[in-house]
Amino acid sequence: MKTINAFDPAAMGDLPARRQALIRRREALLGPAYRLFYQDPVELVRGEGVWVWDAEGKRYLDAYNNVVSLGHCHPQVLQALQTQAALLNTHTRYLNETLLDYAERLLATHHASLNRIMFTCTGSEANDLALRLAQFHTGGTGVIVTEWAYHGVTQTTSACSPSLGNIASGLPQVYTVPAPRAYGVPGADVGAAFAAGVDVALARMQADGVRPAAFLFDSLFTSDGVYGAPAGFLAAAVARARAAGMVVIADEVQPGFGRTGTHMWGYQRHAIAPDIVTLGKPMGNGHPLAGLCARHDLLDAFARETRYFNTFGGNTVSAAVGMAVLDVLEGEHLLQNAQAQGQYFGQCLQALAQRHDCIGDVRQFGLFLGVELVQGGDPSRPAAGFTTRVVNGMKARGVLISACSPRANVLKIRPPLVLQREHVDFFIDALDDCLTHLPQAD
Amino acid sequence: MKTINAFDPAAMGDLPARRQALIRRREALLGPAYRLFYQDPVELVRGEGVWVWDAEGKRYLDAYNNVVSLGHCHPQVLQALQTQAALLNTHTRYLNETLLDYAERLLATHHASLNRIMFTCTGSEANDLALRLAQFHTGGTGVIVTEWAYHGVTQTTSACSPSLGNIASGLPQVYTVPAPRAYGVPGADVGAAFAAGVDVALARMQADGVRPAAFLFDSLFTSDGVYGAPAGFLAAAVARARAAGMVVIADEVQPGFGRTGTHMWGYQRHAIAPDIVTLGKPMGNGHPLAGLCARHDLLDAFARETRYFNTFGGNTVSAAVGMAVLDVLEGEHLLQNAQAQGQYFGQCLQALAQRHDCIGDVRQFGLFLGVELVQGGDPSRPAAGFTTRVVNGMKARGVLISACSPRANVLKIRPPLVLQREHVDFFIDALDDCLTHLPQAD
Repeated sequence: MKTINAFDPAAMGDLPARRQALIRRREALLGPAYRLFYQDPVELVRGEGVWVWDAEGKRYLDAYNNVVSLGHCHPQVLQALQTQAALLNTHTRYLNETLLDYAERLLATHHASLNRIMFTCTGSEANDLALRLAQFHTGGTGVIVTEWAYHGVTQTTSACSPSLGNIASGLPQVYTVPAPRAYGVPGADVGAAFAAGVDVALARMQADGVRPAAFLFDSLFTSDGVYGAPAGFLAAAVARARAAGMVVIADEVQPGFGRTGTHMWGYQRHAIAPDIVTLGKPMGNGHPLAGLCARHDLLDAFARETRYFNTFGGNTVSAAVGMAVLDVLEGEHLLQNAQAQGQYFGQCLQALAQRHDCIGDVRQFGLFLGVELVQGGDPSRPAAGFTTRVVNGMKARGVLISACSPRANVLKIRPPLVLQREHVDFFIDALDDCLTHLPQAD
Repeated sequence: MKTINAFDPAAMGDLPARRQALIRRREALLGPAYRLFYQDPVELVRGEGVWVWDAEGKRYLDAYNNVVSLGHCHPQVLQALQTQAALLNTHTRYLNETLLDYAERLLATHHASLNRIMFTCTGSEANDLALRLAQFHTGGTGVIVTEWAYHGVTQTTSACSPSLGNIASGLPQVYTVPAPRAYGVPGADVGAAFAAGVDVALARMQADGVRPAAFLFDSLFTSDGVYGAPAGFLAAAVARARAAGMVVIADEVQPGFGRTGTHMWGYQRHAIAPDIVTLGKPMGNGHPLAGLCARHDLLDAFARETRYFNTFGGNTVSAAVGMAVLDVLEGEHLLQNAQAQGQYFGQCLQALAQRHDCIGDVRQFGLFLGVELVQGGDPSRPAAGFTTRVVNGMKARGVLISACSPRANVLKIRPPLVLQREHVDFFIDALDDCLTHLPQAD
């Protein structure tokens, strides 16, 4: 299992002594399934807004970490964390008005049919619970995901995450569909092609005697390579899944909380109403907070059979932090900023693509951007080695990004939503320099 | 599915208007699988040390919440949280020296064979990962747990949690064994009986053609009714499981971090060396932090097939908070305190048992205590209704506890480890009053 942008221990010898020592300690202490980023891993020690600093004082523009969506160490979120942590930190088996205010405010941002919320600590737990709910509701086990999907690291969610590699089989029974990719397919009707993929998966499920349970997707297909255009294309596939009796689950861990600029949630770009929506990463701007919103009737079968309690999920501190995140999103007009800066960012990348034929495709949705790198402008020749060099070259030039897609050739760009025009310019200069000077041949 | 000490919505009419309003909002906003504690739920607003206060200013001795093991809002932990959250909150794909220091320090408290650590946010995630590791390592799916075990709320861990009720079937394939219960079984050899249960489960597994994967237990059997005596009894069952090729997983989410007073970890009371140990609840004194320690070779098969990344697990803030928790445990000599106060607590309960024949058994392990209530001193007649009245009566008298066991007749008592003698006296007075004045007939 090769992880994109993973540190290669074989390259250890060239690194400074301090980092070699830290890496060796890490190998001796942490489980071997952990991966470090970059050929020369980064030791970060401080963050503020869009910037982070390493132990040697070098500053980086953080254009990767979508958890700290409001910027590193946002003072208003810190204040909420500190105040509530000093007052009381306890769980959902006692009454807590802030949690209810927070629940009400979050549900109000969703489609009206999504009228109940449950809290977890991680997106993995949220997707795991969503899949449990789908199985309770349908009595089925068949789940459809895309070919390079990522939905979490529990046993159940990792089985639904083909991008993680060779995962143990078992429940749920997973059927993959091709990602909704338009690049390299001129004139393609993305929505029709994606829905046809769902039809094929459903037919295979029926042939295997597997009862459909859930259609689970990240509405920006971020792990598959960042696909979101044209807005609305998801509706046909969702209709097919629903007609087959599937519970429709939108994994908004990455597209959610205003990342796309035009909408609070990625599914809203497609004008669909999922049965369950899962939330995570930026929900607490770094504090471990996640959850799901669902239609009430979907939760009934589950609640009849069992109870749900998550010790830290929805605790008093999480509720206060979650509220502060919504306050900042609104108060600083971050959706508008994500839309405006994202548009500018996209235009700058398009301009760069005019001068560099290695940029095959620019896909921009608010401040989630994917830049597909190919050889000689040919969509069928992914530039995976070059992509790794660019990711490391950007780091050398003071910008943190990473890469995604099964072909390992898509730059994954997800800066904080507080990004300003000058930061985009800084990024573009660094990328221009990389594309101009780094060797392109794989 | 009946939850012990759950609020019954049918009793709503008698409650004060504010609580009725909060409960109705909760029902309208949260998923129906959530449960509130108590006949008249508590709205907590502040905590300090062993005390919490409700919205009306009433003070309660918190003798239930084992998460805030160092006491509510411990200043040293708060300081670590605030300092690090203001500096940097990021993940394990960058180097972080504090995380390594913390990992080293935690591993040093364990059996030397447990030489690698992985971080999650919740005990559910830790147990889920432990079960994945066991399945990767053994190629099996068969898991042994006790009859009323609780190990988490992911799909996989809930399947291993019979106390949650009727859970969807699937992987893992679960075989239950009777809890190691001595009360009401005069002259029983607990260790031999428990090991015999494991033998039966293994034989059933073999008959079903199921390959053994894991023996998963909470070394204090807290959900089954709190069983830990005599120290050492677990060794025989562990030997049987290991001989059958099973991975031995000690779930230390509840017994760990010094709760038992005599040892940092519950499994150490039994002088066994598990293959995997899972950690949670008090690990961050309220901050969502959990993980597992394992033998290195157990992690290899897993790491070859897949990677592991938990966005919030082991982040910079968690590491700083976890370190502060260890500092306080050591600096305030809390194991010694748990041992001393626990012993005093146990003696006081035994004295109470002399005067109240409804106390059938007192089981005390440091500051984890189980008090089994029966009718007329008869072990075979559990006083479930009375137990509920006592739990609610204790609340009325300013003490928070709850209950456990499949017979719903064991008071579950888990105060912060900073508990002092005067708090024990306060607790005993309240319990004496309950046992004297509450109606006992079911």
